[in-house]
Amino acid sequence: MIVVMEENATEAQVASVTERLKTSGYDIHRSQGERYTILGAVGSGGLDPRDLELFEGVHEVIKVSASYKLASRAFKPEGTVIRVKDVVIGATDVVMMAGPCTIESQEQVEAVAEAVSAHGVRVLRGGAFKPRTSPYSFQGLGEQGLRYIRESADRHGMLVVSEVMESSQIPMFLRYVDILQVGARNMQNFNLLKDLSRIDKPVLLKRGPAATIEETLLSAEYLMAGGNHQVIICERGIRTFETYTRNTLDISAIPVIKKLSHLPVIADPSHGTGRRDKVAPMARAAVAAGADGLLIEVHNQPERALCDGAQSLLPEQFTHLMAQLALIAAAVDRRMAGAAST
Amino acid sequence: MIVVMEENATEAQVASVTERLKTSGYDIHRSQGERYTILGAVGSGGLDPRDLELFEGVHEVIKVSASYKLASRAFKPEGTVIRVKDVVIGATDVVMMAGPCTIESQEQVEAVAEAVSAHGVRVLRGGAFKPRTSPYSFQGLGEQGLRYIRESADRHGMLVVSEVMESSQIPMFLRYVDILQVGARNMQNFNLLKDLSRIDKPVLLKRGPAATIEETLLSAEYLMAGGNHQVIICERGIRTFETYTRNTLDISAIPVIKKLSHLPVIADPSHGTGRRDKVAPMARAAVAAGADGLLIEVHNQPERALCDGAQSLLPEQFTHLMAQLALIAAAVDRRMAGAAST
Amino acid sequence: MIVVMEENATEAQVASVTERLKTSGYDIHRSQGERYTILGAVGSGGLDPRDLELFEGVHEVIKVSASYKLASRAFKPEGTVIRVKDVVIGATDVVMMAGPCTIESQEQVEAVAEAVSAHGVRVLRGGAFKPRTSPYSFQGLGEQGLRYIRESADRHGMLVVSEVMESSQIPMFLRYVDILQVGARNMQNFNLLKDLSRIDKPVLLKRGPAATIEETLLSAEYLMAGGNHQVIICERGIRTFETYTRNTLDISAIPVIKKLSHLPVIADPSHGTGRRDKVAPMARAAVAAGADGLLIEVHNQPERALCDGAQSLLPEQFTHLMAQLALIAAAVDRRMAGAAST
Amino acid sequence: MIVVMEENATEAQVASVTERLKTSGYDIHRSQGERYTILGAVGSGGLDPRDLELFEGVHEVIKVSASYKLASRAFKPEGTVIRVKDVVIGATDVVMMAGPCTIESQEQVEAVAEAVSAHGVRVLRGGAFKPRTSPYSFQGLGEQGLRYIRESADRHGMLVVSEVMESSQIPMFLRYVDILQVGARNMQNFNLLKDLSRIDKPVLLKRGPAATIEETLLSAEYLMAGGNHQVIICERGIRTFETYTRNTLDISAIPVIKKLSHLPVIADPSHGTGRRDKVAPMARAAVAAGADGLLIEVHNQPERALCDGAQSLLPEQFTHLMAQLALIAAAVDRRMAGAAST
Repeated sequence: MIVVMEENATEAQVASVTERLKTSGYDIHRSQGERYTILGAVGSGGLDPRDLELFEGVHEVIKVSASYKLASRAFKPEGTVIRVKDVVIGATDVVMMAGPCTIESQEQVEAVAEAVSAHGVRVLRGGAFKPRTSPYSFQGLGEQGLRYIRESADRHGMLVVSEVMESSQIPMFLRYVDILQVGARNMQNFNLLKDLSRIDKPVLLKRGPAATIEETLLSAEYLMAGGNHQVIICERGIRTFETYTRNTLDISAIPVIKKLSHLPVIADPSHGTGRRDKVAPMARAAVAAGADGLLIEVHNQPERALCDGAQSLLPEQFTHLMAQLALIAAAVDRRMAGAAST
Repeated sequence: MIVVMEENATEAQVASVTERLKTSGYDIHRSQGERYTILGAVGSGGLDPRDLELFEGVHEVIKVSASYKLASRAFKPEGTVIRVKDVVIGATDVVMMAGPCTIESQEQVEAVAEAVSAHGVRVLRGGAFKPRTSPYSFQGLGEQGLRYIRESADRHGMLVVSEVMESSQIPMFLRYVDILQVGARNMQNFNLLKDLSRIDKPVLLKRGPAATIEETLLSAEYLMAGGNHQVIICERGIRTFETYTRNTLDISAIPVIKKLSHLPVIADPSHGTGRRDKVAPMARAAVAAGADGLLIEVHNQPERALCDGAQSLLPEQFTHLMAQLALIAAAVDRRMAGAAST
Repeated sequence: MIVVMEENATEAQVASVTERLKTSGYDIHRSQGERYTILGAVGSGGLDPRDLELFEGVHEVIKVSASYKLASRAFKPEGTVIRVKDVVIGATDVVMMAGPCTIESQEQVEAVAEAVSAHGVRVLRGGAFKPRTSPYSFQGLGEQGLRYIRESADRHGMLVVSEVMESSQIPMFLRYVDILQVGARNMQNFNLLKDLSRIDKPVLLKRGPAATIEETLLSAEYLMAGGNHQVIICERGIRTFETYTRNTLDISAIPVIKKLSHLPVIADPSHGTGRRDKVAPMARAAVAAGADGLLIEVHNQPERALCDGAQSLLPEQFTHLMAQLALIAAAVDRRMAGAAST
Repeated sequence: MIVVMEENATEAQVASVTERLKTSGYDIHRSQGERYTILGAVGSGGLDPRDLELFEGVHEVIKVSASYKLASRAFKPEGTVIRVKDVVIGATDVVMMAGPCTIESQEQVEAVAEAVSAHGVRVLRGGAFKPRTSPYSFQGLGEQGLRYIRESADRHGMLVVSEVMESSQIPMFLRYVDILQVGARNMQNFNLLKDLSRIDKPVLLKRGPAATIEETLLSAEYLMAGGNHQVIICERGIRTFETYTRNTLDISAIPVIKKLSHLPVIADPSHGTGRRDKVAPMARAAVAAGADGLLIEVHNQPERALCDGAQSLLPEQFTHLMAQLALIAAAVDRRMAGAAST
């Protein structure tokens, strides 16, 4: 922590701050300039910087050390690689996770699974419990949906990723899915994070629409602090003043998180844009920027989808996209997982 | 729903959209202009506007009716008044809710309760379970904290408001508190909202830092749709690019929500600004703008607070603020609740 | 400037940074902690903090001293008071500046001037040159408009404030207006600021919709650095994700700027909200929060206004507002300028 | 324009709105639903939608037609191609514009020009007049800088793009540069836009940090309405709550603007991120998303740059980037301009 005193701070004021820091267990180093006195406080006293701003004569208090430790790149410089069966996330492969926004029926999830697995997709996505802004919107098929997606995934040798909405659902999800997704609205549902920190399956953590990168990594830290180091971060768009797109997909967050943290980072261009014709360009952009994977909505009949059909790719659009992604991945020394099998 | 066709849309395209709307149960009224064809779709077909944007020739689809009904002013034009014991929220009185950010000890909550009740404050606030961004921060005293705050409130004839973090805590909260608070990070925790919709106590719903006013009212709708009509909306600051204040307290949301909805609206200037010296000006602004109440943090020793001391008022600052608020309330034909007793 | 080295920075890296700082004219104070080495650089070497971030081993570089000097509260702790004829801005009086958004005709500006001067308003506002987002919108009457507003102001003993759009207009404005307004879109038109820094009339500087408070004060610094110390800051709303209001009027910016700077601060609730029924609540909020004045649009026939009629108060609404403001001003130990004459 | 009446609007209220619309020259089509009455107003009456919201009984007024016409894709479906000498912008080639942030000396600009032209770069960028947030920062070499960059460009057969800050500089710029850049802070400096609309050279228009896509296209419309159809839009990052990057480069704006408008779109990843190690990933992302060009800062000695060195690429980083971009361009059926010559 660094305390910058006001220009006209008195010696008594400096002494008062110094004492408070020392009694809290910090070592103090003083830098005396012409205009400013700066106190460098080293240690882990646990003071809230804003508490010090209450002291007379204090101009500004600056927190130095990142408050996340396990999630920081320094903790594991070589990067985290997550293996689920034969799918490897965070290494050379760019992993495509695709499927319908919402599981609507056995036929629907099967049709999509068949289409995407034909392109080498190894992870099937689909929501069974849907967080909907309006109480009057379709809320998902529940456990029946999980059963459908599991069956289709097994039939095509795929993994399943699906969103868990509250702690009481965790045991059920452990029976059906391989990767548990925490939705953007739950990114700071700390009780849910704590409960997920004790499971032995990977968690896909979506950045909240108003969450800074630092807050996102602190939520990852909740998972890791409880013992679950299999965390995948997902950029899915932040809320900005621009309304043409549903959210603004923050592509720059991908290289930023890759630098700050050792965790794999994927992008969700479907929710990030909310418009189907923007999904492909943003998927390409994410891979070009270094994403470890993509989460994409594909629907066999988007115009009949019960939820978010507008942002789902058609299977034939998906085919074209996969071909482009293979070329782009190569440009950044990566390859699309499963691409060999196409 | 209103569908605006592209300038060069063909008759076949118009027909295709029209048919889809009709089969979904809408009545269609067509407006034919020189440049645009506009289709007014009336009814409750439940189509997602974006689904229609998938159709060829569609320029834009505009949703008309607000998706919240029970929360809208039209549903109860005279306004909702919530009565808990002898505290009345949403009528002429401006209700002050004050207390420490976090319940730290019996002594602390008692000292603050005594100080604020002396100024006529009838609702005691304090957190027992704290949502903290970092897993390494103090997480609250839990049930013991609820016990402390209940005892102090009873001693001074006050109500208790405190934040509930997940559904499993609801029965415990019902034993101790009079108003259950949903925190900003949980505003779209829909499972929690559904469970709170079935209780018989008021819910204080905080607007999320990235939530629009419409989304906030839709979360209120979740509570009301389940049967709980005792909802208080709380503006507590939105996330913007300005970093000097922790959040930007959106004072204009107060008159806006008062117009759109019949629910009482209060403001939390402590979390909204994050800085003690800005709490009083913003509290005054909120009352001047028509707030039905305030949620304010007061601490007897902010510099020793375990959480957010920097934004807590000192008791003597609180005294001065209450005197100013009484004058401002009068200017807008309101009065501070309990002010008579000071 | 404070340089925080990476946890694992080598001594050679620390030495390299230290040398660069020294050769740039800084004195260095080193704080050595268990995890971090912190270098406090004192002096005025003029390095861009980001330049240092290029050095190997540097974790973070933090700029300390505010980059504005003349605009800072420390430069003039007692506050700036601006006097134009008998109008005093920045002292006890809260100064109301009112008038039409756009000057449309001699009759219109005269009707509004008469209405507002009857309430003691001493500053008449009105735009002659309008910055319009679309090239097809009405762009103002130009010099003829300035002539009209000057005549009406003189007839009622009022001052004139109006927006200047580019340097070449300054001589013309000096002939007609008492206070030159810099619009929000021009807040960082640095050439215009430099030219206005050389005039001998007050400048009303509007905060840009995406400008931080610090940037706003730096634009004020441009004016002051060139010699013009008569600067009034105007908060008029920032751009956020909320779309119900045109902008989000950042009421908290008022007490923040009052603390950081000695310059008078006023608020523009008309542009800040864009909706007439929100103008009065936000005007009250601004005065309650400590504003030194208000800039309000009043129109005799808003439904016939050529620009922004929707946000203009009717004269009778203005009357009621002035009465409320007088009470609120008193609550914060201020008084409405000219109120005695009503 | 579409007017949605309140649920309980009276026939008299509907009639009043209808009459106002008719007298303003609109044709009215009425849609009568169970809950809502919708009036479709077709024509070009020029009413401000908010003016109608003033009428009793009006729930909402929705503007339909995009207010830009010349800039819309419909005006020129095949897309605008700008040719300057043998450089073609907006066709198959992805055009790289590179050079120092600020022109500091003849040696510096020549060293960078030599380095980038060796990679086939055909457009040299560099600032001679710099808009700086602080009045105490280096403000550029002025005309001398333009002379230096012109000489280096001529020596290497390159075009020059540089930022013009005010109308009075236009004649000077026409002597030295091939493409005149309007900076982000000047995007709504409408007087400057009007003056640039009358020149016969292309204008590179940067999106403002708080400008919506629609506003950006309206600024382009200012240029086109005055007769200059050679407009290049540049996405350079918007202001969001995230502070790790200087701005958030809105990659999705690229495909969005390409759909809404026929104008070429380029991206500036240097200003968009403000950090050198993020420039390459974002440059790749922009090309993958369909950008027609890039504007990139390259400096031979970034650590000695007078401005924004921290975001300038080193020549060797540039080499590697150009190789990656060639592969990515091919993936989207484009090619890097000048790439053949490397």
